[in-house]
Amino acid sequence: MIELSGIIPPVTTCFHPDESLAPEKLKRNLQAYLNYPLAGFLLLGSNGEAASLSAGEKLKVLDIARNMIPGDRVMLAGTGCQSTKATIDLTREASIIGVDAVLVLNPFYYKGRMNGEALYNHYQKVADSAKVPILIYNMPAATGIDMDAELICRLSRHSNIIGLKDSGGNLVKMAEITGNAGTDFTVLCGSAGFLYPALTLGARGGILAFANIAPQKCVDLYKLGNNKNAVEALRLQQEIVRLNTFITRRYGVAALKAAMDILGLYGGPARSPLLPLEESVKGKLHRLLEESGIKSI
Amino acid sequence: MIELSGIIPPVTTCFHPDESLAPEKLKRNLQAYLNYPLAGFLLLGSNGEAASLSAGEKLKVLDIARNMIPGDRVMLAGTGCQSTKATIDLTREASIIGVDAVLVLNPFYYKGRMNGEALYNHYQKVADSAKVPILIYNMPAATGIDMDAELICRLSRHSNIIGLKDSGGNLVKMAEITGNAGTDFTVLCGSAGFLYPALTLGARGGILAFANIAPQKCVDLYKLGNNKNAVEALRLQQEIVRLNTFITRRYGVAALKAAMDILGLYGGPARSPLLPLEESVKGKLHRLLEESGIKSI
Amino acid sequence: MIELSGIIPPVTTCFHPDESLAPEKLKRNLQAYLNYPLAGFLLLGSNGEAASLSAGEKLKVLDIARNMIPGDRVMLAGTGCQSTKATIDLTREASIIGVDAVLVLNPFYYKGRMNGEALYNHYQKVADSAKVPILIYNMPAATGIDMDAELICRLSRHSNIIGLKDSGGNLVKMAEITGNAGTDFTVLCGSAGFLYPALTLGARGGILAFANIAPQKCVDLYKLGNNKNAVEALRLQQEIVRLNTFITRRYGVAALKAAMDILGLYGGPARSPLLPLEESVKGKLHRLLEESGIKSI
Amino acid sequence: MIELSGIIPPVTTCFHPDESLAPEKLKRNLQAYLNYPLAGFLLLGSNGEAASLSAGEKLKVLDIARNMIPGDRVMLAGTGCQSTKATIDLTREASIIGVDAVLVLNPFYYKGRMNGEALYNHYQKVADSAKVPILIYNMPAATGIDMDAELICRLSRHSNIIGLKDSGGNLVKMAEITGNAGTDFTVLCGSAGFLYPALTLGARGGILAFANIAPQKCVDLYKLGNNKNAVEALRLQQEIVRLNTFITRRYGVAALKAAMDILGLYGGPARSPLLPLEESVKGKLHRLLEESGIKSI
Repeated sequence: MIELSGIIPPVTTCFHPDESLAPEKLKRNLQAYLNYPLAGFLLLGSNGEAASLSAGEKLKVLDIARNMIPGDRVMLAGTGCQSTKATIDLTREASIIGVDAVLVLNPFYYKGRMNGEALYNHYQKVADSAKVPILIYNMPAATGIDMDAELICRLSRHSNIIGLKDSGGNLVKMAEITGNAGTDFTVLCGSAGFLYPALTLGARGGILAFANIAPQKCVDLYKLGNNKNAVEALRLQQEIVRLNTFITRRYGVAALKAAMDILGLYGGPARSPLLPLEESVKGKLHRLLEESGIKSI
Repeated sequence: MIELSGIIPPVTTCFHPDESLAPEKLKRNLQAYLNYPLAGFLLLGSNGEAASLSAGEKLKVLDIARNMIPGDRVMLAGTGCQSTKATIDLTREASIIGVDAVLVLNPFYYKGRMNGEALYNHYQKVADSAKVPILIYNMPAATGIDMDAELICRLSRHSNIIGLKDSGGNLVKMAEITGNAGTDFTVLCGSAGFLYPALTLGARGGILAFANIAPQKCVDLYKLGNNKNAVEALRLQQEIVRLNTFITRRYGVAALKAAMDILGLYGGPARSPLLPLEESVKGKLHRLLEESGIKSI
Repeated sequence: MIELSGIIPPVTTCFHPDESLAPEKLKRNLQAYLNYPLAGFLLLGSNGEAASLSAGEKLKVLDIARNMIPGDRVMLAGTGCQSTKATIDLTREASIIGVDAVLVLNPFYYKGRMNGEALYNHYQKVADSAKVPILIYNMPAATGIDMDAELICRLSRHSNIIGLKDSGGNLVKMAEITGNAGTDFTVLCGSAGFLYPALTLGARGGILAFANIAPQKCVDLYKLGNNKNAVEALRLQQEIVRLNTFITRRYGVAALKAAMDILGLYGGPARSPLLPLEESVKGKLHRLLEESGIKSI
Repeated sequence: MIELSGIIPPVTTCFHPDESLAPEKLKRNLQAYLNYPLAGFLLLGSNGEAASLSAGEKLKVLDIARNMIPGDRVMLAGTGCQSTKATIDLTREASIIGVDAVLVLNPFYYKGRMNGEALYNHYQKVADSAKVPILIYNMPAATGIDMDAELICRLSRHSNIIGLKDSGGNLVKMAEITGNAGTDFTVLCGSAGFLYPALTLGARGGILAFANIAPQKCVDLYKLGNNKNAVEALRLQQEIVRLNTFITRRYGVAALKAAMDILGLYGGPARSPLLPLEESVKGKLHRLLEESGIKSI
């Protein structure tokens, strides 16, 4: 039984300037993150550019991470694919490598047909076959599909579906889910932009792109939220939201990696078709990071 | 200087079965609401079917309400129209009748042209000319436009723009606004579905359709949220959210009025093209209200 | 029985620089348009800024136009309001003034509840009560609702619903409608950007903003399309589409009025919140008009 | 130099009941299609469930098809992936197998960052490296991105980008593209629902899911459209549109395969998460096919 609470960064995948995989850089980043009280790590998430990795590269990334992540931290892997079959296959391979649980993004290519019934069947099949627990991943900005509370709550009854990462930011839905999902179903917040309100609604932590560059601030906000220190939590949430929106919502992976470069981690390039940041945006990012007082990692 | 905090119902407009205005019924409802510790009342909001009232009917409704609402409660009126000119005119008439402030929905017919600059100019002109303070009203479900934090914060610098009702439910944006808006700018939550998280982010109250049928529950949640009673607040928020979604999001004004009829208030018909609730939905509404323990008013 | 075919401009409403109604300018424009072989005129459409006119101004505009438009041209008026009652009332007033038919935009404020049943009932009631024939007006860019072929075809069975103006540009739907609607149901194209393909699919003409500035070109394209002169029709359609997109889609009423000013008609200001064109856009408009060879009117 | 005109079915990929690849069934279908005057075949399109195939399965499908398709028919393959690198790699492998051209769907996972610049760079890189010509594939229903005329026309200047398949149905845009794209740039219609109007606007053919079940009707409509037989073309377009909408838009691949089973081809199951058709829908499909008079293949 894994314990899912606290802050988990969706680790970026490191590439050399020619866009080939850079295993040593990934190791270096993970080593640096281990100095922070993070609950664990997600590999192969959206910010890990899973969509741009080959099947072989995905397994390579998991291998590297498995060797770096100690047993007292949770290791998660994104294994959602467009077909049920491919999702089951990748989940099996991830479980053989030894991940603690997998995060399964819903299929979305045939979005006109991805109604509640289709997605329910998909997740049931994946959960039935998986040797590790499943977290549902809802990410409407990428998928164009926003799974509703009814579907999530139905799925939460499956003994092998243990939680949800929701990046959509619909907190009405989050209250419906924390109020009606099965016992021991864990809701994790998908963005630092709404971590504090999510915690007040029963979320137990967050898988936050922002934790790649400001792990301590994310952990601080998590603790303030949990300790019901409302004044300080609000202040820190307000401080975080602007920078987080700029980096993770507006400019995405390339901005996150640029910020990592600035902060002493390895950022490197995002894979094409993602473009490098324009110089003017990079300049603004520099200023915003300085103002924020985020320290090198 | 008006004090804006606490719970305000957007009062429904009462119609006879033939859809003509029913002033006595409106008076009766307002009288009943005065038994509750509500901070005030909004007339001519979305749930007041302002879009379906003639200019003359709007003034009639304000007249009735002005005579019923005592000085220790705030009286607000929705005065947003599609043109700046009409908005200014209706705001003037409302101020002559004696409302304490007006709630101005943004114009949205020419939505392709309603960029930040157009809306900024619109609100500036309205605020410049108004004899009463202005609250901005953001309601993307009706308008198809979701005004962003940057626009709201710019507008908050105007001395006569004192607040915002936001019904969109984007709490990332709400944190940006409470963190960056001008001093004394009041954010009010636009739906009972996210009242508690909104309060944790600095909102000072709510204008809630749900307060038309469950005023005490809304006030209770407001107090729990303000007193940082996190466990109880979450429990009550989770209890409210399902019924609120069913009534105010899924079935709208007709369901709200049907619930009012069930609870001893005057609901009556919504104006066509809004249809009456189907019998099966009405049956489900009955059951949900019974389960909720909401008492007659 | 009115004959609906050919090209009809949705006439702009003229305002003085202070945004008050300018009746003399409207007369002058109508006078100029009478020199062109236009089938008729629509008053109070989207480009007539109906949403920004008071009830009194609407009737004033109809009065002016009724006095100017001879019996051999069709006079249409936009009478769609948010409530069924208001739509019926305005339709009655328009019929008393003597319009030949009315164009009824669907209600859209409560868009979550405007399903097929609600809109079917709305149009039936309006058509039952009207003394003049009804055309349905589908304009998703303004309303956020795209009425489907099934609803339109059901409504086409009503003896007093004689046609449709569709501005959405979904030509799959147009083929479904011309193939399945009731006999004598007339489909009119709502934009010069797809007039030619609409004609090939059975549309009998168009109500085209572009006809306010290029009436002859619109009539020419209409004739080429009807005469199956495919090579010339395609060439003219391709010529028109770019300018039409720039003016009517991208910059809207303000650009249309600016173009009218350039071409010797009275454009004048659009009502706020619509902003005047920026100087750089006006410069580009000048160049595009020059390149297009459109002549003064 | 390949000649692209006429009708091309996006061939479905055949699976056994256990969802494994069924090469013999695919051969049988291709053999049957060769009896029709189709211009060629697309493998690995949306209706080929490319999103649900592994890298190895994709190459297997291409191998099978390459052996079946004679030199006088065009063979196309869908090779668009989420990363530029993967798209280049798959394009190279397809060219080695001997496809005549590839159809490249735009990347869309990071849709917030897929602006014109990012997509322009992506297609330039793919086209620069490819040994076969490239067609752009625009499919907003799956990708959530609708590439605009300006981007398409810029890309059309590349000597190795020879055309576009547009499934979006925006015919205003199609007129802009056929009017402004580079010489010898071929526009192909992406759905039988708007084939005739697309032909009038300069499209030279279509890649049509409907051609999997009604190849002759599609070829007939293509010829009628090209021969400017407007009355007959309209009649056939109106006949096709309803069935096409039912199958390809509303119910998708599973319905297409069910129709193939009914018509004597091998349909078989779609891969999960796509669900089999409900029995009631299958019944309706039977009736619609009977009414349509489409013959077994």
